[in-house]
Amino acid sequence: MTYIMRKIEHIGIAVKNLEVSNLVFEKLFGAAPYKSEEVASEGVNTSFFRNGPNKIELLEATNPESPIAKFIEKKGEGIHHVAFDVEDIIAEIARLKSEGFVILNEIPKKGADNKLVAFLHPKSTNGVLIELCQEIS
Amino acid sequence: MTYIMRKIEHIGIAVKNLEVSNLVFEKLFGAAPYKSEEVASEGVNTSFFRNGPNKIELLEATNPESPIAKFIEKKGEGIHHVAFDVEDIIAEIARLKSEGFVILNEIPKKGADNKLVAFLHPKSTNGVLIELCQEIS
Repeated sequence: MTYIMRKIEHIGIAVKNLEVSNLVFEKLFGAAPYKSEEVASEGVNTSFFRNGPNKIELLEATNPESPIAKFIEKKGEGIHHVAFDVEDIIAEIARLKSEGFVILNEIPKKGADNKLVAFLHPKSTNGVLIELCQEIS
Repeated sequence: MTYIMRKIEHIGIAVKNLEVSNLVFEKLFGAAPYKSEEVASEGVNTSFFRNGPNKIELLEATNPESPIAKFIEKKGEGIHHVAFDVEDIIAEIARLKSEGFVILNEIPKKGADNKLVAFLHPKSTNGVLIELCQEIS
């Protein structure tokens, strides 16, 4: 199954203030974010840090209706989601759906960092918001 | 800096029932856990799934005083911590301490999966419980 999840592509961390948190994670990893990007459709500003084969994405809400604003209001700052790298997101969505997982968007959408993304509902995955992401070639 | 964090070694997910959740994650990854292990000192039963260069650890409390029981009571099931692989945990603890991070145990302790581990207090890392882990050779 070449379309199955191959690695943790990134973890997404909800933060209140991206500028402040960029400095914290720069100290942690010894390097600045390699990219900052607004994803207007999701109401977030993001920054990305490399960590070997993986990445860390920081997410700051750009408006009070942003899912990140709501997450922080409910749970506080912290890990918001984990994203797995897939080769064929359409095939992987179909496989997971057939296994009984609840897919939040069956049609992949454009996410940050040049990716097609889809999310699994946390209720089918022990409270974990899982993102599938496929690099747009 | 060869001692700096090199990759996400694993993410740890707090679950209510390990047996039930093992089946969920087996469907997700298409493979059974490669290891199950009790860590009596932490009050947890664990199982580990491989995902390329990374791992997923599921954690179930073995008693009501377990940090995992308290986490689930407060926040529900979900991602509990992220662990980074380090080559020299003593040096990395010293570096992070000098950068102002709060280390929960400055003397590494024996964790699951043949690792020496130390934790950073979430208050210094945007609510994220970070584990450093070094393979015991």
